[in-house]
Amino acid sequence: MSDPTIPALRARLAAGATPAVELRAAGERIRAWNDPALFIHLSDDGVQRGADSGPLAGVALAVKDNIDVAGMPTTAGCPEFAYTPTADATVVARLRAAGAVPVGKTNLDQFATGLVGVRSPHGVPRNPWDAALIPGGSSSGSACAVAAGLVPAALGTDTAGSGRVPAACTSIVGLKPTKGWLSTTGVVPAVRSLDCVSVFAHTVSDAWQVATLAAGFDASDPFSRRRPETALPQGALRIGIPTDDELVGVVDEVLLIAYRAALAGLTSLGHRLVPIDYSPFREAAELLYDGAWVAERTTAVGDFLAGAPAGADATVAGIIRGGHHHSALAAWRGTYRLAHLARAAEAQWLRTDVLCLPTIVTHPTVAAVRADPLGLNSRLGRFTNFANLLDTCALAIPAGLTPAGSPAGVTLFAPAWHDGLLARIGHELQLRLDAPLGATGLRPSQIAIVPPVIDDGAIAVALFGAHLSGQPLNPRLVALGGRLAGAIRTAPEYRCVLLPGTPARPGLVRVADHGASFAGELWRLPAAGVGRLLSEISAPLGLGTIRLDDGRCVAGFLCEALGAAGQRDITTSGSWRDFLAGR
Amino acid sequence: MSDPTIPALRARLAAGATPAVELRAAGERIRAWNDPALFIHLSDDGVQRGADSGPLAGVALAVKDNIDVAGMPTTAGCPEFAYTPTADATVVARLRAAGAVPVGKTNLDQFATGLVGVRSPHGVPRNPWDAALIPGGSSSGSACAVAAGLVPAALGTDTAGSGRVPAACTSIVGLKPTKGWLSTTGVVPAVRSLDCVSVFAHTVSDAWQVATLAAGFDASDPFSRRRPETALPQGALRIGIPTDDELVGVVDEVLLIAYRAALAGLTSLGHRLVPIDYSPFREAAELLYDGAWVAERTTAVGDFLAGAPAGADATVAGIIRGGHHHSALAAWRGTYRLAHLARAAEAQWLRTDVLCLPTIVTHPTVAAVRADPLGLNSRLGRFTNFANLLDTCALAIPAGLTPAGSPAGVTLFAPAWHDGLLARIGHELQLRLDAPLGATGLRPSQIAIVPPVIDDGAIAVALFGAHLSGQPLNPRLVALGGRLAGAIRTAPEYRCVLLPGTPARPGLVRVADHGASFAGELWRLPAAGVGRLLSEISAPLGLGTIRLDDGRCVAGFLCEALGAAGQRDITTSGSWRDFLAGR
Repeated sequence: MSDPTIPALRARLAAGATPAVELRAAGERIRAWNDPALFIHLSDDGVQRGADSGPLAGVALAVKDNIDVAGMPTTAGCPEFAYTPTADATVVARLRAAGAVPVGKTNLDQFATGLVGVRSPHGVPRNPWDAALIPGGSSSGSACAVAAGLVPAALGTDTAGSGRVPAACTSIVGLKPTKGWLSTTGVVPAVRSLDCVSVFAHTVSDAWQVATLAAGFDASDPFSRRRPETALPQGALRIGIPTDDELVGVVDEVLLIAYRAALAGLTSLGHRLVPIDYSPFREAAELLYDGAWVAERTTAVGDFLAGAPAGADATVAGIIRGGHHHSALAAWRGTYRLAHLARAAEAQWLRTDVLCLPTIVTHPTVAAVRADPLGLNSRLGRFTNFANLLDTCALAIPAGLTPAGSPAGVTLFAPAWHDGLLARIGHELQLRLDAPLGATGLRPSQIAIVPPVIDDGAIAVALFGAHLSGQPLNPRLVALGGRLAGAIRTAPEYRCVLLPGTPARPGLVRVADHGASFAGELWRLPAAGVGRLLSEISAPLGLGTIRLDDGRCVAGFLCEALGAAGQRDITTSGSWRDFLAGR
Repeated sequence: MSDPTIPALRARLAAGATPAVELRAAGERIRAWNDPALFIHLSDDGVQRGADSGPLAGVALAVKDNIDVAGMPTTAGCPEFAYTPTADATVVARLRAAGAVPVGKTNLDQFATGLVGVRSPHGVPRNPWDAALIPGGSSSGSACAVAAGLVPAALGTDTAGSGRVPAACTSIVGLKPTKGWLSTTGVVPAVRSLDCVSVFAHTVSDAWQVATLAAGFDASDPFSRRRPETALPQGALRIGIPTDDELVGVVDEVLLIAYRAALAGLTSLGHRLVPIDYSPFREAAELLYDGAWVAERTTAVGDFLAGAPAGADATVAGIIRGGHHHSALAAWRGTYRLAHLARAAEAQWLRTDVLCLPTIVTHPTVAAVRADPLGLNSRLGRFTNFANLLDTCALAIPAGLTPAGSPAGVTLFAPAWHDGLLARIGHELQLRLDAPLGATGLRPSQIAIVPPVIDDGAIAVALFGAHLSGQPLNPRLVALGGRLAGAIRTAPEYRCVLLPGTPARPGLVRVADHGASFAGELWRLPAAGVGRLLSEISAPLGLGTIRLDDGRCVAGFLCEALGAAGQRDITTSGSWRDFLAGR
């Protein structure tokens, strides 16, 4: 199979293919795959409606059938529930505006209630790895459409783990964004306070591009949130991991081996493993189905199910009817318990940047799930259910194959709005693990993979003196959210003087003649940190533009010429550290 | 009566009085007032435990009896509920650290359930204005202790309006902070997700000082929140008001007259009245008692009340038992409805800075409330109940007297974390209205009142060119959260040149000789806005320190000397606008 990613598609377009050709090819792949349980509705006119431009031009998009696509019925996996929306869900509209074309609506665990992919009257989408194994759910069809190489990207939803479990079951990437970043307007609610739209793709980079194009505040969604500025950690990270007692006997041995190999991959990338207290995460996960959150599902479709529609899945209907038994007291007590656990989790986040867990603890067969529909489903949520309750983002990536040849996966978690951090480390890890790209027969090392474009809004600031690593004001820089980006040298256009006062400070002035290069560090700070830093600098220092020897211009410390006049010139030391060392 | 405020107390200390003397005097005032229904517990040893220093040294603090004070019983107004905490509530501990001394625990509507002040087995605290009138609740005792001049400040709690209604009933200031700013650790929950600790004092300035000393993130409180940076509006404000149909027939005529006088006061201060769509606020208010939030009260003390304690107030117990009847579905549907209303309210906040409403719509007698305990209580919450549900801060201030001589009050509201804005405008308005300071016989014009010290963390930036009001880059400055603080002139130490490029920009350089003063504007920006601004400035401009002609040093635009060299000197124009005008 040819490279299934978006960059490869764009390369084909650049080489003369048209979006219509790409979309037609996707249609042919879908027909050839011939799985009646994958799409609930398939578009006939995708080719005609495709945009000719935009970053996603030519991208055939599979859409989970609880997300509205204008003109296609939305069933949420229950034929009697069907309605045909006249408007796209906000995320679909945004992706369409970027050039993507929704080609069909995919099968799911009915009402997005389940992690197995077998709870649907439309049958079980065929797992491209082994039809006997579950595809995972609830976003089963969307994951299979990507894993089989039919479409480059698909939309799912993720409340308990529906955007991650199927990714692990089919060896693709599942991106579960921070709650509220992608609008849920036009999405059939499962647990309204927790629902997220998620993205499936073959690479972290593709999932990231689709997610960022779909994302953004939407006033029509009461749960939409404005993204705050967050300076993401750079360089080596602290990777939180649970202790063995949370894993051994919980995770199937073959999946645990893959997990440990992924951790080895993370350390080989320079990151550091940090055992954490996993209990608040485990206890939060248990709240989702034992607690009153089930009643949120009942608010969504309980009235509909009360009519006992023929297409209702018995397991799903049973769960959702159960929500009627909870009291308001239980609901509030659940939220209090969760608030307490969130504080406890917060303490663990102080010790770790990213949490890494096995995505699934077992990969059962369809037959096994049919025999134990609740127990196995519950096990599948073991390491997924806490994410939305505890307000984390999550990124599931393939982590190789078991000896039996079925996929394994790991998920990276970080606090809300650290999605870009997960994309960075997830991309690195995907390259390192080189696990299969779905069932395409390809691996990352066999395709031209591009890094995700991550803009965290941080501002680079060049500094040369008391704020350098190890110097007296450096702790303040760190407190302002600063992260070291690396060593730098100015262009050979500056002189540096020693300013009087305590602490001793260097002062750079750009000069017309006899300038030299001076060494320093580049730090990245959130905008608020830069503002605060400025307010703490006293004359004659200020922040202006520094030209670097590699041609870049960045913000950085400058000295007023008047303040530098008459002071000792230390330019020939070459750097503040060399000056302090007497060189 | 002598000036009852904290600055007056500090002046007495400066003149030789000791904190112990002040505390003893408070004790004597309390004894002389002789209201057995005001304090549930009174300390004997306050004098011994008083700190000798700190901003609140000598301040006798009355504490509502649902807030823990170490060693004093907490009853929440129900004798059988009593326990004696070994630790102060976080807010009490912080105020004690600032020098204040808790002198006793005050009466309240039992379990803080009520707005009337009559729902207590300890009787009705005597309203110092008229014992026939209710003192308001639930923080009845705390309000009366301040209004009677017994203590300079008191702590209350405010879930539905318990920190504002009693302030209006007794002509004092009631500050209800942003939810989560003051810790509720050590407070008996009423509606845990909404409860706030509130402050009563005679002046906005005193309430503000006490609130800021009590405030701050507390990890032990799951509902505590970290205060974000918020640049507060400066200068003239847009004051949102409801249309007449929300007021006429709703508010007693005598209170409506006082409200309209307060609005006239606001316009006389230069602010502008803006009629808004009040419906989202009204509808949110209705959720608090009709909806499932009552069940939160039941989670707090429902089990206790199930034992039918003799001291239980029948009205309170009836309300709280009602919470058992709500389902989890109803609770979630309530939260969805609220999320929808919050979005609608958000749209109104785009049109207004501060909302001003009558605090109470009627001021009933104790007898009237006894005859209609639920109906009148409900009416009292008409303009208060929405505040915590819709995440606003609120500040109740006295607004004069009715023709019959009873107090009227208005409340100012703003979105979360705009507490400082309310303190600024509330202080101005209190001076303008000059309403009685409780029942002390004094008015603001008769005492030495000081303005509140408000630090919103904004950074002042001096600017001179394209960012000035009306200039091309000014809209960007506003988008970054900038607020004009006023016109400024530099010290006579600068030269200004015309920089090449588009838009045309001036460049200021500090010089040793032949410097002059140059005029510009001072703007205040949140730190993030300053950082963003810096990232958008190109060489040779930067941000450094500007010395002003009044001696202040502020951040501001500076030009690298090298970039200014050889450019046209426009210093003699005196300002960028004068230069553009050809002067």
